[in-house]
Amino acid sequence: AQGNGGARGRRGRAGPCRAGAQLSVPRQGTRDHPPAQVALRDRLVGTVVACFKRHGAAAIDTPVLELRETLMGKYGDNSKLIYELQDQGGELLALRYDLTVPFARYLAMNKITNIKRYHIAKVYRRDNPATTRGRYREFYQCDFDIAGQFDPMLPDAECVKIVHEILSDLQLGDFLIKVNDRRILNGVLAVCGIPESKFITTCSTIDKLDKVPWEDVKNEMVGEKGLSPEAADRIGEYVQLHGGLDLIEQLLQDPKLSQNKLAKEGLGDMKLLFEYLTLFGITGKISFDLSLARGLDYYTGVIYEAVLLQQQNDHVEDPVSVGSVAGGGRYDGLVGMFDPKGRKVPCVGVSIGIERIFSILEQRVEASEEKIRTTETQVLVASAQKKLLEERLKLISELWDAGIKAEILYKKNPKLLNQLQYCEDTGIPLVAIVGEQELKDGVVKLRVVATREEVNIRRENLIEEIRMRTSQL
Amino acid sequence: AQGNGGARGRRGRAGPCRAGAQLSVPRQGTRDHPPAQVALRDRLVGTVVACFKRHGAAAIDTPVLELRETLMGKYGDNSKLIYELQDQGGELLALRYDLTVPFARYLAMNKITNIKRYHIAKVYRRDNPATTRGRYREFYQCDFDIAGQFDPMLPDAECVKIVHEILSDLQLGDFLIKVNDRRILNGVLAVCGIPESKFITTCSTIDKLDKVPWEDVKNEMVGEKGLSPEAADRIGEYVQLHGGLDLIEQLLQDPKLSQNKLAKEGLGDMKLLFEYLTLFGITGKISFDLSLARGLDYYTGVIYEAVLLQQQNDHVEDPVSVGSVAGGGRYDGLVGMFDPKGRKVPCVGVSIGIERIFSILEQRVEASEEKIRTTETQVLVASAQKKLLEERLKLISELWDAGIKAEILYKKNPKLLNQLQYCEDTGIPLVAIVGEQELKDGVVKLRVVATREEVNIRRENLIEEIRMRTSQL
Repeated sequence: AQGNGGARGRRGRAGPCRAGAQLSVPRQGTRDHPPAQVALRDRLVGTVVACFKRHGAAAIDTPVLELRETLMGKYGDNSKLIYELQDQGGELLALRYDLTVPFARYLAMNKITNIKRYHIAKVYRRDNPATTRGRYREFYQCDFDIAGQFDPMLPDAECVKIVHEILSDLQLGDFLIKVNDRRILNGVLAVCGIPESKFITTCSTIDKLDKVPWEDVKNEMVGEKGLSPEAADRIGEYVQLHGGLDLIEQLLQDPKLSQNKLAKEGLGDMKLLFEYLTLFGITGKISFDLSLARGLDYYTGVIYEAVLLQQQNDHVEDPVSVGSVAGGGRYDGLVGMFDPKGRKVPCVGVSIGIERIFSILEQRVEASEEKIRTTETQVLVASAQKKLLEERLKLISELWDAGIKAEILYKKNPKLLNQLQYCEDTGIPLVAIVGEQELKDGVVKLRVVATREEVNIRRENLIEEIRMRTSQL
Repeated sequence: AQGNGGARGRRGRAGPCRAGAQLSVPRQGTRDHPPAQVALRDRLVGTVVACFKRHGAAAIDTPVLELRETLMGKYGDNSKLIYELQDQGGELLALRYDLTVPFARYLAMNKITNIKRYHIAKVYRRDNPATTRGRYREFYQCDFDIAGQFDPMLPDAECVKIVHEILSDLQLGDFLIKVNDRRILNGVLAVCGIPESKFITTCSTIDKLDKVPWEDVKNEMVGEKGLSPEAADRIGEYVQLHGGLDLIEQLLQDPKLSQNKLAKEGLGDMKLLFEYLTLFGITGKISFDLSLARGLDYYTGVIYEAVLLQQQNDHVEDPVSVGSVAGGGRYDGLVGMFDPKGRKVPCVGVSIGIERIFSILEQRVEASEEKIRTTETQVLVASAQKKLLEERLKLISELWDAGIKAEILYKKNPKLLNQLQYCEDTGIPLVAIVGEQELKDGVVKLRVVATREEVNIRRENLIEEIRMRTSQL
C-alpha cells in the first residue's frame, strides 16, 4: 500500500490514550484531522460557502493574532478563556476568541461602512473541553455578516433565509429556526417589573427554557436570581409563548407590552421579518419564541437560533445531543466600540456551527459505512510486465499535462495485482495499463475498476476517453 | 453603495501609519486581508491545490498549537523565533513554525508509514519582519510531501515535476529549478579536506553564491569560517559548476569525488532523477547546481529550489526582488525523531512560496488595472418602479432556491440608476428587472450590464436563461 491508506479511518481525536512520551500533541482540546476528516469537512464547507456566495458575500481574512486589548471587554465572563501569548516585550498579543470581534475591529479600522462578508477560520478558547461533546480549544467558526445602514429587516431576513438554505442543502433532517428580539425580551422584563440591572442574568435563566421545564426556570429566577415569585410568573406568561404572525399580532395588542417602546419596536420589526420570510416561503420552519435569549451581550435586535429536531427513524444508534447548529442576530453597537469617534455600523450576522454539523455528518458516514475518498485520482497508470517504468512515466506525464488526475506506484516493477489492489483501496476508478503488446499496437488498455471491463483505446484518444468516463462518475 | 465596495482596493498592509489609538492590530508582521486580496489568493491557491490533487494528494490538518517540546531542537538557531503561549499551568504550548515538523510528528504519532499529502495553512514566526520584502509574522505555507519507502527518486522526480507544473500553470514567466544533493555537497567538502564540524557553516556560505560573486564567498570562507585559501579554491572548483546530465557524468568520473561514497550515491541518484525528468520532458528548466545548499538541517538527500528569471520586457515598473518561489528536498530522518523507537519514514517534499508568488500576482494585477471581482453574483434583482419590494423578494427567493447567485439592494424603493450602478461597481453581469408592465405580461426584463442590451424573458424561462448566459461569461 502507498498513498493515503495509512491514515484512513484514524480519527485524530485528542486524548491521553494516544499520546506517547515523545509523541504528544496538546492532550486537551486540539486534534489532527486525517485525510478522511478533511475530505468530509471540505464537502461541508463547500456547501456552506456555495450558499454564502449565492448571496453575494465576499471573503475576508484577519490574523489569528490580535492585540489583547482588542479582545478584552467584549466577551463578559468568558474573557478568562482568551489565550494569551507569552509577553516578549512590545505589544501583548492573544489568539482570536471568535471571528465577530475581529470583523468589527476590521470595519472600524478601515472605515468600512458596508460589506457582506463570510469568514471560515479557526478560533481559540482556553476552555476545559468536554471532547465527547465536540468542544475543543481550537475549532472552526463559520460566519456570514452584513454590515451597513439599510432598510429594516431586509438583511436580517436574508440571514434567516441563509440558515434555512444551508440546513436544507446539508440534508440534516428536520429543523426549526427560533427567532426573537432582544428588545422584546427587555420589554417583557420591564413590564414584568424587573430592574434593568437584572436583565442579563434573568435572560440567561430564561434561555434554559428549551432544556428544562418552566418550574425549574422559575425556581432559579426566585432562588438564585432574587426575583419575586409573582414577577417570575408574569415573565412565565410571556416567555412560554411561541408561534408565528398571529402571536406577534396578539402581543402588539397586549395592553402592557404595547405600552413599552422597545417591545413595540421589536414586535414591529418581527412582523416585518415574518412578512419577508413568508415571501421567501420558509415560515413553516420558523418559530417566534419568546424564551430565546442567546448568550452574547452584544446583540441589540433580532436574534435567531436553529435546532435540529429529533429524528423518529434515526438510523444512528447513539445520536449525539447536538444542540443548536446555527445562530446569530443583530449587533449594532460593536463596531462603534472600535471607532475613536464611536461611529456605529449596524451589523447582522449568522454563525453556522460547522463543528457540530461535522460531528453529525461524521457519525452518519460511519453508520452508513460510506467510504469517503480522500483523493480525486481518476486513473492509475499501471504496467502489465516488468521494465515498463519509462513507458509509465511518459504516459503519466502526458496525462498530468492534460489535467488528468493520475498516479503511479513508486516502484520500478510493480505487480499488476498490487496496482489493481491500490485502486480498490483508494477508490481510483480507472487503470491505464501499458504492456508490450499495447505499445506495439499504439494502444493503452483502459480498465474500469468497478466492472473489470477492459478496452483498448488508441493512445491519441486516451485523454478524451478518460475525461468522458470520469465526467460520468 | 452596499456590499463589498468599501473594502476594494484597501491593502491591509500592516504598518503604524494605519493604526489609530483604539484601532490597532499587531503593528508588526500581521495583516488583514480584504476581499480583493482573498479573491486573488483563492485563485492562486486553487491552481496549486488543483496540481496537488492531480498528483493524488490528500489533505490533512494539524493544530496551530503544538507542544513547545515538539518544536524545540528542530530549527537550529531559528528556534528563538518560535511564538510561545503564556504559561497557564499544564502543557507549554507554542504556535507552529512550519508545516513540516507537525507533519512528521503526525506521521510518527499515528504510525503512518506512507502518505501523499498537502497542507496549506498559516505558520508563525516571532521575526522582525521586513514588511516591504513580503515577510510577516503570520503567513501561509503550502506544502506537498510524499512519505514512504519507495524505489529511488520516483517521488523526488514527481516533486520536481509538481514545481514545474505549478510555475507553468501560474504563468509567472521564465523560471529555473536548481537541484543538488546534500550528499554530493558533503562529499565535495570532504574531498576538499573540510572537517565535518564545518560542513553546515560552510554550506551556508556556499548558498550565497547565487547572490554574490565567488570572490566574496571565498573571502567569507577564509575570513569568517576559518578555511584555508587553498581549501576554499578547491571547493570553488566544484560549487561554481552547473549543468545537466553531462555534468553528472563528468563528476561520476571525477578522480576525487568518485572515491567518496556519499557523493557517489548522490550522483547516482541525481543521474536517475535527470533520467526521470527527461521522460517528463522538463529538463529544459532544470539545472544541477552544486552551489545549492538550502538552509534547513533536516535535508538528507536531493534538494531543489525554483527561482524566477528576470523578465526582459517586464511591464511592472518596480519589480520586487522575490528570490526563490519554491523549494524542498528529501528528509529521511525527521519522522524518526518523533518515534520512541526511532523508526524512520523517508520523506520528500516541496513548499510553494505562495506569499511571494501572491506579491508578484498582486503587483501584476495592479499594473494591469485588472479589476478583481470579490463576489460571484450573477444577477441583481432590481425594480423599475416603487412598491415592488415584495416582487423582488419573491423573485430572488426563486433564484436562490435554483442555485443562482443573486443579490438585491437592501432598500424598499431603490432607484433603478442606483441598482445599475451597483452592478457596474461590483461586476454583476446581469440585472433581472421587475416592473408593473413585466408583471402583467408574465415576463422579467433581463439586462446585460456590459452591453446594456435588454430582453424580456418569460418568467418560467428566466432561470434557464440566466444559467445559459452566465456559463458563457
